[in-house]
Amino acid sequence: MSSQAGQLFRISTFGESHGGAVGVVVDGCPPRLELSSEDVQRELDRRKPGQNRFTTPRQEEDRVEIVSGVFEGRTLGTPIAMIVRNQDARPSAYEDMKDLYRPSHADYTYEAKFGIRNWQGGGRASARETIGRVAAGALARKILRERCGTEVVAWVERVHDVEAKVDTDTITEARVDESAVRCPDPAASAEIESRIDAARERGDSLGGVVGCVARGVPPGLGEPVFDKLEADLARALMSLPASKGFEIGSGFAGTRLTGIQHNDAFVPGDDGRPHTRTNYSGGVQGGISNGEPILLRVAFKPTATIRLEQDTVDRDNQARTLAAKGRHDPCVLPRAVPMVEAMVCLTLVDHYLRHRAISTT
Amino acid sequence: MSSQAGQLFRISTFGESHGGAVGVVVDGCPPRLELSSEDVQRELDRRKPGQNRFTTPRQEEDRVEIVSGVFEGRTLGTPIAMIVRNQDARPSAYEDMKDLYRPSHADYTYEAKFGIRNWQGGGRASARETIGRVAAGALARKILRERCGTEVVAWVERVHDVEAKVDTDTITEARVDESAVRCPDPAASAEIESRIDAARERGDSLGGVVGCVARGVPPGLGEPVFDKLEADLARALMSLPASKGFEIGSGFAGTRLTGIQHNDAFVPGDDGRPHTRTNYSGGVQGGISNGEPILLRVAFKPTATIRLEQDTVDRDNQARTLAAKGRHDPCVLPRAVPMVEAMVCLTLVDHYLRHRAISTT
Amino acid sequence: MSSQAGQLFRISTFGESHGGAVGVVVDGCPPRLELSSEDVQRELDRRKPGQNRFTTPRQEEDRVEIVSGVFEGRTLGTPIAMIVRNQDARPSAYEDMKDLYRPSHADYTYEAKFGIRNWQGGGRASARETIGRVAAGALARKILRERCGTEVVAWVERVHDVEAKVDTDTITEARVDESAVRCPDPAASAEIESRIDAARERGDSLGGVVGCVARGVPPGLGEPVFDKLEADLARALMSLPASKGFEIGSGFAGTRLTGIQHNDAFVPGDDGRPHTRTNYSGGVQGGISNGEPILLRVAFKPTATIRLEQDTVDRDNQARTLAAKGRHDPCVLPRAVPMVEAMVCLTLVDHYLRHRAISTT
Amino acid sequence: MSSQAGQLFRISTFGESHGGAVGVVVDGCPPRLELSSEDVQRELDRRKPGQNRFTTPRQEEDRVEIVSGVFEGRTLGTPIAMIVRNQDARPSAYEDMKDLYRPSHADYTYEAKFGIRNWQGGGRASARETIGRVAAGALARKILRERCGTEVVAWVERVHDVEAKVDTDTITEARVDESAVRCPDPAASAEIESRIDAARERGDSLGGVVGCVARGVPPGLGEPVFDKLEADLARALMSLPASKGFEIGSGFAGTRLTGIQHNDAFVPGDDGRPHTRTNYSGGVQGGISNGEPILLRVAFKPTATIRLEQDTVDRDNQARTLAAKGRHDPCVLPRAVPMVEAMVCLTLVDHYLRHRAISTT
Repeated sequence: MSSQAGQLFRISTFGESHGGAVGVVVDGCPPRLELSSEDVQRELDRRKPGQNRFTTPRQEEDRVEIVSGVFEGRTLGTPIAMIVRNQDARPSAYEDMKDLYRPSHADYTYEAKFGIRNWQGGGRASARETIGRVAAGALARKILRERCGTEVVAWVERVHDVEAKVDTDTITEARVDESAVRCPDPAASAEIESRIDAARERGDSLGGVVGCVARGVPPGLGEPVFDKLEADLARALMSLPASKGFEIGSGFAGTRLTGIQHNDAFVPGDDGRPHTRTNYSGGVQGGISNGEPILLRVAFKPTATIRLEQDTVDRDNQARTLAAKGRHDPCVLPRAVPMVEAMVCLTLVDHYLRHRAISTT
Repeated sequence: MSSQAGQLFRISTFGESHGGAVGVVVDGCPPRLELSSEDVQRELDRRKPGQNRFTTPRQEEDRVEIVSGVFEGRTLGTPIAMIVRNQDARPSAYEDMKDLYRPSHADYTYEAKFGIRNWQGGGRASARETIGRVAAGALARKILRERCGTEVVAWVERVHDVEAKVDTDTITEARVDESAVRCPDPAASAEIESRIDAARERGDSLGGVVGCVARGVPPGLGEPVFDKLEADLARALMSLPASKGFEIGSGFAGTRLTGIQHNDAFVPGDDGRPHTRTNYSGGVQGGISNGEPILLRVAFKPTATIRLEQDTVDRDNQARTLAAKGRHDPCVLPRAVPMVEAMVCLTLVDHYLRHRAISTT
Repeated sequence: MSSQAGQLFRISTFGESHGGAVGVVVDGCPPRLELSSEDVQRELDRRKPGQNRFTTPRQEEDRVEIVSGVFEGRTLGTPIAMIVRNQDARPSAYEDMKDLYRPSHADYTYEAKFGIRNWQGGGRASARETIGRVAAGALARKILRERCGTEVVAWVERVHDVEAKVDTDTITEARVDESAVRCPDPAASAEIESRIDAARERGDSLGGVVGCVARGVPPGLGEPVFDKLEADLARALMSLPASKGFEIGSGFAGTRLTGIQHNDAFVPGDDGRPHTRTNYSGGVQGGISNGEPILLRVAFKPTATIRLEQDTVDRDNQARTLAAKGRHDPCVLPRAVPMVEAMVCLTLVDHYLRHRAISTT
Repeated sequence: MSSQAGQLFRISTFGESHGGAVGVVVDGCPPRLELSSEDVQRELDRRKPGQNRFTTPRQEEDRVEIVSGVFEGRTLGTPIAMIVRNQDARPSAYEDMKDLYRPSHADYTYEAKFGIRNWQGGGRASARETIGRVAAGALARKILRERCGTEVVAWVERVHDVEAKVDTDTITEARVDESAVRCPDPAASAEIESRIDAARERGDSLGGVVGCVARGVPPGLGEPVFDKLEADLARALMSLPASKGFEIGSGFAGTRLTGIQHNDAFVPGDDGRPHTRTNYSGGVQGGISNGEPILLRVAFKPTATIRLEQDTVDRDNQARTLAAKGRHDPCVLPRAVPMVEAMVCLTLVDHYLRHRAISTT
């Protein structure tokens, strides 16, 4: 189990879905940052369950308590521990699944690895684990905004085969959150809503793609050859529950272009440094940010928890059937949006601090 | 700059394209492994330039010397340093590009980060850097094979829009290497060869997708929540030069399925543990290997170095044009195959050792 | 700020002296370990203030709550978060010291590093920070005992110039705890008690040496050349508040012997492996445990907080005088004993897990 | 085996005493530092064997080759690999010791850990391993000098019971190197020389203490609570071969003072910041440098290799006697001086870079 991440902005998350609490300790946050629990709560509210009919009906207030590292409204440079109590846990709902391995869940693999698992609501493998990430991400976002002017915005780009059109130069969080499913293209949003309604009704689930842009990232972030910026972004995003793919810039589609089509020609910038005419690179070249917007996409599979009957196996390797109970999202995409933003912010702030160590400007 | 990777099987690579040498130090390799320089040379030979007309004409023998950590044919458990001398360096070929930023290369970003760069053949940003990875990967592959029976095979799955059909259950390295472009589908291989020839002739370049399977990976590898197996694989592969995307299992395509279509039903295995009827999960569930084949795909952009004229900017932010010289691959895919295998092996062996620390079997 | 330690058994501690809470997250604890809060509370009770007149009168129950990582009485392999609420905080006692730098405290250096500090009771630099260490150490001790049969016992070996005689082969925690000052030599204990009483009365403080033995450490722990066992022990113990020196085995005194006097002759052991006739090596040779008892000593300076008047400087670099208020220990040694044990256990368990990764037995 | 150290200035050392080569890869060295092999050679020459009759007669030129990371006389920010070929290896001298465990050497423990060892001259456990440290330390020293004005000087403070008087405010490397045994007190130096001569003649060996001062360390370096500056210094120095103890500031002797005697009163500094009247703290308070000289001492045991006959055990656990052959230093102290300086410089530069990441000045 490695629930620690980051080289200089280090986070250590904890908590099971139906345990006492979930949370995070942030070590290495720069001192003197203004910070209140409202800064964090705002992000947690975007992530929390029960926001509307498109998310799990589990009722959790997800109130964060900051128990250390802040003094008179400012960070001390010491570890910031943040904790959220679990309230609406209903472990009994999982009682009859405790000897079964739910298909495409982590039940079997946790058992294979640890020889034990918390079968209540997925335990540590529940998306509830991401509360610690989102709380820490709120700090990271604040630092990036105040120190670098960086803005990170994610959105639902596609659900099943319903694709949104999004202008990555102008998209804002406010526009994204106007949509109940966090898809800022109204037509696509409406269609996605009805698809999710239909999937929930028939006990099925949907997947899709979240897009994300980070504007105002200074040139120079990223540490080749192994901690290239896109490598650490990929790792961060592929560590989210249900993610199956990652692209930066032109991604898989760009492999269908030729070199002369794909290369981003440099043009002199008014700010005294080169800019690129196109941005197939997605803001990263040679593993280091070039100052253009960072563009990335993450694939999320259809939710594994479905009410339809499925074949499975129990702990004694006997064939069984299962129709899952428990509360869940028929489509994780809308709530994945703040998770993606959090992971991008955490990755960028860590690289921002790492780069400061050697930068001369 | 972070040229170190791994938690327990740790590698530290070094070397510029036109510097004195490239190589790697491997720290944490288990003791008593039989190892000769031939074991390593074999992999380097698959990676080296000048193999045929589809790779750069640079002539490098890439002879590896193991200078420490091996005694009487076996590893000591101490650091294994491996070094390859650069021979056919022609820095003068880059002289007139030293004040220009080549489009979609790392020239500008290295300069932005470090305030200095080795302009000879890309310096550290050259694919020549991967020699250290491939050398270390040879050790990782040997450990996995001997201790776990794991086989890792990669191939060229697509170049531009020419797609190969590959049976991931039976594909072997030998079959892959029968093709000059490492595409084991003969029809696709022939078409890819002619496409690369055409691209080289017109001074353009091509990209594509490398597929990879790891068969015989024991269940239990992977460290949620941040070092999930797919997260560390993504990071490893997205750290390769020119990679723009990563997928595991069903990847982006799987997001167009619904939950009931996508879930991998469990069936009782003859070996006493559950197996899955399908493998959309790609061998990893909840960040931990489930014993099924690990399936992944990596997107590589068209080579940035092309002879066609392009717009760019010089160090004084003045507009210039550039038609690149220097030797290069018109398509990196064939030589990316051993690199992908190396990164997969390095990731798996590190997780194998990490899992051993807590496993009871 | 780096409040994270450990490679595989990783801890992340948090909390200020007068903040909301202190605690720790343990990542990488092996699964299926029986664990109750009583296991942890027992160690915290040995560390807590107000035990008797030799410790600070601050009244803290130091009740631990385990909020994650344990299920049905066993560890899950997931992060174990433990939290202790601060109760008897009296920040007002420090109000008139908030602009002064207390001599030999961390007030000035925290301000120099972070540009901000929590002036209430030392903030993060208070010994209250060690609660997280001791809580995590309780888990480490349990694993070592159950898996390796290792016992770790520390004691007060010297206070000022009063030195105890201790038999490291037979000393037990029970015998140590019979003494109110944790000195298992009754004559020395009595003298130390009267010395501490006298120091407290005149507003002064005392330092001394804590000794520690780890018996039953298996051969093979330690990772040369930088993570030698004694190097990691030194780091762990020199990270404790007020520690100024570390010795292993013969330490500084051993440098007055010659080679023939100091070398530990090997003798055949009944258990089939070599043992040493003497143990000047202190159980570690070449950075790796040799199976003999590990012997170490840690120097703790006299408590910096004293009531006697001292010269100092305020935040404006103006000369001032100070007679400290606030509650404190006139001698930290008795309460340092469980802290030393905790740090030794944490270091050993991390190396035990690291060694398992490559061991074949 | 962990031959990697450092968080941001990371080193990875390699090499056995009688293998092909020894060396180091430095990752994270700041870019644009002027660097030539002479900068490194100078330090290696101070460390190398055969300097005079007080060191081992093994003849090694120890010529360093920098094979990467430097371009046109400046560092690139990329990994700097440095290699030194072994020349005067005489493995045959160790042939008849290959089945014996030399007392107080690492023979038995390496065998216990790895199940294999290079019995030629100690293999990786030889002090020859420190070449990589000293080479990397030369870079660290240069950065500290140029960026911070820091000077690090070590000396032989005591051999056996011959103690030198040294003024830590004025001592220089030049003065230390005037003495053949690196003891800058002429009377003590002469006595130490005759003691070493006598020990060598009778086949015995001597230990002692190396002192070290770092002047001009900026306030603010150190990362509490686990990476306190003294903790990381302790770890670095206790990782040197033959070290048995570490002290900072007043160390063990300071524990015999009371609080009012030991506290370092602050006085207003002419430079606008507080200084201390005494320096019992040794330049570190609360784990962070306070701008005063850092003072430390390291105990080195008498060399384990002696010609006098000793009892030991062979690989079959049978009693044997041994009178060691092979070349060695009868007293490691003189050559330990550059090693101590290297480890101090490496620790300081890493913390300098870590502090830069969050510092605002």
